Amino acid sequence: MDPHAHAWTPEEARARFRTGAAGPTAGVSAGHTQANLISVPADWAYDMLLFCQRNPEPCPVLDVTDAGAWTTPLAPGADLRTDLPRYRVWERGELVAEPTDVVDVWRKDLVSFLIGCSFTFESALTEAGVPMRHIEQGRNVSMYLTARRCRPAGRLRGPLVVSMRPVPPEHLAAAIRESSLLPAVHGGPVHCGEPAGLGIADLSRPDFGDPVDAEPDDIPVFWACGVTPQAAVMASRPPFAITHAPGQMFLTDARDEQYRVL
Amino acid sequence: MDPHAHAWTPEEARARFRTGAAGPTAGVSAGHTQANLISVPADWAYDMLLFCQRNPEPCPVLDVTDAGAWTTPLAPGADLRTDLPRYRVWERGELVAEPTDVVDVWRKDLVSFLIGCSFTFESALTEAGVPMRHIEQGRNVSMYLTARRCRPAGRLRGPLVVSMRPVPPEHLAAAIRESSLLPAVHGGPVHCGEPAGLGIADLSRPDFGDPVDAEPDDIPVFWACGVTPQAAVMASRPPFAITHAPGQMFLTDARDEQYRVL
Repeated sequence: MDPHAHAWTPEEARARFRTGAAGPTAGVSAGHTQANLISVPADWAYDMLLFCQRNPEPCPVLDVTDAGAWTTPLAPGADLRTDLPRYRVWERGELVAEPTDVVDVWRKDLVSFLIGCSFTFESALTEAGVPMRHIEQGRNVSMYLTARRCRPAGRLRGPLVVSMRPVPPEHLAAAIRESSLLPAVHGGPVHCGEPAGLGIADLSRPDFGDPVDAEPDDIPVFWACGVTPQAAVMASRPPFAITHAPGQMFLTDARDEQYRVL
Repeated sequence: MDPHAHAWTPEEARARFRTGAAGPTAGVSAGHTQANLISVPADWAYDMLLFCQRNPEPCPVLDVTDAGAWTTPLAPGADLRTDLPRYRVWERGELVAEPTDVVDVWRKDLVSFLIGCSFTFESALTEAGVPMRHIEQGRNVSMYLTARRCRPAGRLRGPLVVSMRPVPPEHLAAAIRESSLLPAVHGGPVHCGEPAGLGIADLSRPDFGDPVDAEPDDIPVFWACGVTPQAAVMASRPPFAITHAPGQMFLTDARDEQYRVL
C-alpha cells in the first residue's frame, strides 16, 4: 500500500481501489471507519442477519442493503461492487475467485452486510500510544480460526475468527479501554495471552493475513474478527456469496468517533 | 407492585407474573436485565430484525427465538407466553386484548424478539446517585411518541418512542455517562431539555405510562425506548403481533454488568 495512504480521504481510497489498486487497508484513511463485506442471496439474508445478532462481537452490523443494491448511506456515491481493494467469490463454500471487482458476478438477489472492522479502533489505539506492530512492519494483521464455535442461526454455523495484535504490557490497559469503547467495531478483546486458550497452535502461522513479529515482552491480544462470516460461509456452504479479501476492507465516510459510546 | 419487588430474584418475579400478578416492573429484581417483547409471524421476522438493526438505539436486540419457541437462553426455564406481567395482542395494527398470558393466542410461526429496556440502566443510575422520580412516586415511567421517524425496513416503519426521566442538573453527567456505557439497553440519551425538540407538546400527557412529577430545576432527559417496535406495529399493521404492555417487562436472569462496555 502507498505510504501516503493514511492521508487519503475515504473517497480517494475508494477511487484507487475502483481502478484496480489492491492491498491491506490497515492505516488507510486513518480515523475513518472500515467495514467487512458479506453478500448473500436474499434467501439467506435472515439467517445471516440472525447469525450476526447472535454473535455481535465478531459480527457487529453497521449496515444492510436492500436486495440487489450496491450503495450504502455509510459512503454516498460508493459502489460496493468495485470500491473494495479485493473480493472473494464463493460457490457452495468454496473460494472460486479473488477479483478486484465483482461487477460480472453480481446478482440481483444479493443482500450485502457491512460489518465493523478492528482496523477502525487502531486509530484510537495509536492515539493512546499503543504500537501497531503490523502497520510498523507493513504487513496485514494476523487472523486465526479458533476452537470457539459461534452460536448457529438457521443454516449458518462456524468458528469464531480472531485478529491478533502483539501489545507491550504497559499498553495493555489502554488497548483494552479504547477498543471496549467501540463495541460497534468488535469492542474489547475476547482473549489475552496464551493462544492455546482459543485453540490456536502456532501464532507464526495465521489462517488469514500475515505473520507479525512481536517483541519479547509483548502480550498477544485477540479481538473478534469480521472474517467470521467468511468462515461461516466456508462451513455452511450457501450456494453463492461474495466477501472482501481478509484485511482488504471497505472504506466508509463514517468517522470512528461516531461509534464511540462515550 | 409489591414494595419488596426489588429484592425478588428474576425467577421469583416471573413466577408471580405467571400466576397473574401484573404491573410496571421498574425497580423489580434490581440489577437484572429487563427486556421488551415483540413477537411477529416468521414472514415478518426479517423485516423486524432489519428494523432493529437499522434503529439500534430504540431496538437493541438481546435475543431472537426460533419460530414458535417460547424459551430463551437469557432466562432458562422461563415461558415467554406467561412470564410477563401483561401483554398486548395486535391484529392489523389494532390493539385487541391486554391479557396476562398469551397461551391461547400463541402461534407456531411466531418469532420473538427480546429488546433491551431502559429499566436496566436505572440500577446503574441509582448507584451513581441519580434519583429515579417515577420509582420514588410509585409510577410507570413516562413514554412519548416523537416526531422523529425511524429508518424503515421492508414493510416496517414508524416513529421513535422515548422514555423520559426528570434529572437534577447536578446528576446529568452521571446519568449520561452511566447509560452510555450500556449501549445494549439503549445507551445514552437521544435528547435533553426542551421536549419540543422531539415534537413532544406536553410532558404531563405521556402516550404510554404515567405522568411523573419533576422538581423545578429538573432537566427532562429522553432515552430511546423499546416501545418503538410497538409503534411500528401500530403504523405498519402486520396481520398479527404480541408485545409486552408498556412498562411491564420480561425479567431475564442476565445481570446488567454483562452489557457494560467497560
